[in-house]
Amino acid sequence: MKKLQGCLAPIPTPFDERGELYFDGLKRNLEAWAKSSLDGIVVMGSNGEFVMLTQDEKLRLLEFVRENYPKEKLLIAGTSCESYRETLFLNKKAYEFGYDAVLVLPPSYYKGSMTEDVLEYYYRGLADESPIPILIYNMPANSGINLSSKLVVKLSSHPNIVGIKDSSGRIVQISEIIAGAKGEFAVFAGSASFLLPTLAMGGNGGIMALANVIPDVCSNIIKSFNTGDLLKARELQLLILRINAFVTSLYGVPGLKAALDIVGLYGGPPRLPLLPLGEEKVREIKEELNGVLERAS
Amino acid sequence: MKKLQGCLAPIPTPFDERGELYFDGLKRNLEAWAKSSLDGIVVMGSNGEFVMLTQDEKLRLLEFVRENYPKEKLLIAGTSCESYRETLFLNKKAYEFGYDAVLVLPPSYYKGSMTEDVLEYYYRGLADESPIPILIYNMPANSGINLSSKLVVKLSSHPNIVGIKDSSGRIVQISEIIAGAKGEFAVFAGSASFLLPTLAMGGNGGIMALANVIPDVCSNIIKSFNTGDLLKARELQLLILRINAFVTSLYGVPGLKAALDIVGLYGGPPRLPLLPLGEEKVREIKEELNGVLERAS
Amino acid sequence: MKKLQGCLAPIPTPFDERGELYFDGLKRNLEAWAKSSLDGIVVMGSNGEFVMLTQDEKLRLLEFVRENYPKEKLLIAGTSCESYRETLFLNKKAYEFGYDAVLVLPPSYYKGSMTEDVLEYYYRGLADESPIPILIYNMPANSGINLSSKLVVKLSSHPNIVGIKDSSGRIVQISEIIAGAKGEFAVFAGSASFLLPTLAMGGNGGIMALANVIPDVCSNIIKSFNTGDLLKARELQLLILRINAFVTSLYGVPGLKAALDIVGLYGGPPRLPLLPLGEEKVREIKEELNGVLERAS
Amino acid sequence: MKKLQGCLAPIPTPFDERGELYFDGLKRNLEAWAKSSLDGIVVMGSNGEFVMLTQDEKLRLLEFVRENYPKEKLLIAGTSCESYRETLFLNKKAYEFGYDAVLVLPPSYYKGSMTEDVLEYYYRGLADESPIPILIYNMPANSGINLSSKLVVKLSSHPNIVGIKDSSGRIVQISEIIAGAKGEFAVFAGSASFLLPTLAMGGNGGIMALANVIPDVCSNIIKSFNTGDLLKARELQLLILRINAFVTSLYGVPGLKAALDIVGLYGGPPRLPLLPLGEEKVREIKEELNGVLERAS
Repeated sequence: MKKLQGCLAPIPTPFDERGELYFDGLKRNLEAWAKSSLDGIVVMGSNGEFVMLTQDEKLRLLEFVRENYPKEKLLIAGTSCESYRETLFLNKKAYEFGYDAVLVLPPSYYKGSMTEDVLEYYYRGLADESPIPILIYNMPANSGINLSSKLVVKLSSHPNIVGIKDSSGRIVQISEIIAGAKGEFAVFAGSASFLLPTLAMGGNGGIMALANVIPDVCSNIIKSFNTGDLLKARELQLLILRINAFVTSLYGVPGLKAALDIVGLYGGPPRLPLLPLGEEKVREIKEELNGVLERAS
Repeated sequence: MKKLQGCLAPIPTPFDERGELYFDGLKRNLEAWAKSSLDGIVVMGSNGEFVMLTQDEKLRLLEFVRENYPKEKLLIAGTSCESYRETLFLNKKAYEFGYDAVLVLPPSYYKGSMTEDVLEYYYRGLADESPIPILIYNMPANSGINLSSKLVVKLSSHPNIVGIKDSSGRIVQISEIIAGAKGEFAVFAGSASFLLPTLAMGGNGGIMALANVIPDVCSNIIKSFNTGDLLKARELQLLILRINAFVTSLYGVPGLKAALDIVGLYGGPPRLPLLPLGEEKVREIKEELNGVLERAS
Repeated sequence: MKKLQGCLAPIPTPFDERGELYFDGLKRNLEAWAKSSLDGIVVMGSNGEFVMLTQDEKLRLLEFVRENYPKEKLLIAGTSCESYRETLFLNKKAYEFGYDAVLVLPPSYYKGSMTEDVLEYYYRGLADESPIPILIYNMPANSGINLSSKLVVKLSSHPNIVGIKDSSGRIVQISEIIAGAKGEFAVFAGSASFLLPTLAMGGNGGIMALANVIPDVCSNIIKSFNTGDLLKARELQLLILRINAFVTSLYGVPGLKAALDIVGLYGGPPRLPLLPLGEEKVREIKEELNGVLERAS
Repeated sequence: MKKLQGCLAPIPTPFDERGELYFDGLKRNLEAWAKSSLDGIVVMGSNGEFVMLTQDEKLRLLEFVRENYPKEKLLIAGTSCESYRETLFLNKKAYEFGYDAVLVLPPSYYKGSMTEDVLEYYYRGLADESPIPILIYNMPANSGINLSSKLVVKLSSHPNIVGIKDSSGRIVQISEIIAGAKGEFAVFAGSASFLLPTLAMGGNGGIMALANVIPDVCSNIIKSFNTGDLLKARELQLLILRINAFVTSLYGVPGLKAALDIVGLYGGPPRLPLLPLGEEKVREIKEELNGVLERAS
């Protein structure tokens, strides 16, 4: 199996003006990302608007991306559904298509029923039955459920649960997972905003919206850190905080898509209920992005 | 259009032991509910495990229920999806099948993007394009999003937005909606635990998990209230608080399904990740239920 | 002991322009409230800015109010401190001064340590050692701690814990307390915004900021309800929702003090960090207040 | 002014068995801390049970500590009160006694009124009027209020607001403060659990409960980091996560006091409502502490 580490981008799903999957735009983006310093990508994560896609669209998307992205890079499929059986179905499909791993959110609609026991049962069951390695996906800001370090450490003992993307930003929790996890368990920062702190604690890299937009800057934080240049890593980390907020917590997927359009990739419109950004916000992103690119070089 | 009021049950979706839709059990339940004092039912609400169903299952379920439930009673379809286009699609199907109204949650995965403006745009768009009246569904415990009374009052001015099921239990919010809503806007308590307070403030009834199990007791709260017997209504309201918690906040859908089995209807297993209740909890429900039935008669 | 019921006002503490206790203004207010239809008052509740007062000021205030308010009405002292020993000290003082009961918040700074066991121990200890009856004060919006109905029902069995002011607005919780509490335990709505729902469930009245401003309207909700005129009670309840928000959740103590100035009582400035309302908000309150008074008569 | 940096301990306030201030125990502790590698201490922070102390006790405590702790080390006074005037009074006293700085929480009882404008006004006013430099204290787990990085960055421009102890553990927020703060603004981790991530981002040190118990281990994280031995710093950081939880989030002040007793300093009982730890938990702490000390040496 490929080593789970480095700089990964959870890619957005391109739609055309009528709201249909737009494979031409996607192909163009995949080529650019393949040439960048990215170590891999994740399809159908939160930035991929996976909750907006029909089952059929999901399968077409998984297939297309696998065929148009280099085999030697990491390719991960987001397969989260509320129902166990649907998630398992997608895990099997991702395996058949040739993905390296799947990224799985906890079910979250029935919050009151999602005790740690239920969640452990869910992940262990999937890990037992899936033919493909599983990355846990902790994203409390969207799902409303935080996976405790205690639960994650327990799950890390399963041979088919191979890592976590933690988007909580709770650095103590991330540290506790690193302190407690067994073996080769990979810990990824789920946002570029806390990449360096995660690396400092021994994390394996980041799966970060911003890496779609400025992969080389994000990648350079990791490279600087790995070569012992902590000051450079810190300087870049502090530099990207604001642009990162624009494409995540502040303006979400519409912000990310606007930023892609700005750097010459295909962003395009999100699906309703998400609305495209207004001009004012696009200008804000453009300005910040230009500033970052200037100072980063 | 039928008057939106009274005692409604958001029915669970029956599965057999292999986890497949079980129409025989459903048919039996529908017959019992048709004979009860229920004024109507809601298909594919939270208790209907709608997030566990495939598109195909949803359509089969909608069709089957319509064919097996009396035309003169209220029949409402839960059609909530994260994506506007999928919700709209189901709204049209519900209309074609002959439903009286649809019940629609706010999209909730991208919580940070779901501003009041975005939510207003979403509901107005659906209301404009849907051939069937819309009931707003506020269920913050599951969705993680609360629809403010200010937003609901605004939406109540749309001729095709005809009411709300508010499961928040926030009685001040419910009161503010009643104080501010235009015209015939129907306000339903979303749980039996605050039915009487909602009626006292001028609400139109309840859409309540517990009404699946003991429809006549729930219905009797409304009847007592409407005939001026507040003491009887209060006595029943206080009586059902604990059993209501068992089939909602405490044990969720598995609790509701266990309770149905106890009263001789078809409950059956939930779908994973939801797990059937253990024996101890089933016994607890049974005991409480027997106590309620004894004292209610 | 006097019966714990009816319409009570948690009075604000008047300060002069230099921020000192202003007893002349207080005396004037006490005379007006004594003549109104209020059944009693609470000194040093949340509206009394008790957290801003020194120990010495608290004692002077308790004494002054006792001497200037009719003996036959209910007079309750807020005595909440973070420390057990200080709360107990004030309870003893309130007894010596001749108060009817004390109102006690849970300690809340060390939230992580305030388990239900610790809170039960705290209230039972105080109830054992205090020479004066204790009313529990649940105010999660300020304290950050909600007292569960389970805990309150347990505490209701203590002979010296005689009731609760619940400001949570959680009507199910309030109903559960009524359903479970022993004997004569008095349940008060902690805000005018859910007075009628509380009465409908069997509550004993309200301790409500708004009762400082328009005691007769608040009182009339209770009177209408008690005499079986539910429609009148509901009409008034719906009427006051907005003005109530102005003097509580929206503009807080500064809003309440501004409203008192508007109706000709002494409001005056709050203490820093609280800031007096700006003109625009004062105008808003004035307009709403006039509308309410007009329609209520 | 002394440089604000390094390893500081927010000391607990010792009480004897009757609950009175116990200066003999305190003196013994101060001597031990003076000989340790601590760079300074904070009196009357959250661990100092400041909310349990009377005004008179606070003044005696401030005076005693100043007289019994070396002048060349950092000595900071917690002076937080809900009321501006009382906080200002203590700030002046701390200055008179000879403290280096004061640590000030936002007022937090009237949460609904504590807008960013009100909080900015509060801190700027104090900074203008206080004769002593102010450190902002962000402790949302206790106060229920989080000070945003935007607000803190604004405040950092005031010449008399010299730094922050951030106990939120939100590393992105801490990073944003570092990225945006003006001049010499000092940023301290408010708990040992995220000391290294804070240092990695450019923070100045930590003010940490655990530093009372094992000052040399905490200090060694900083020293290792500063001398470029990131691996050693990380190893120690991962090592202390669990013992840190015992003396903070899990068992709070009672846990900290028990740990002090274990290492031969004076811990003693907390004040009610806080309760001393049971034997089982004391044993747990002892075991973990021994493990840490063994592996750290």
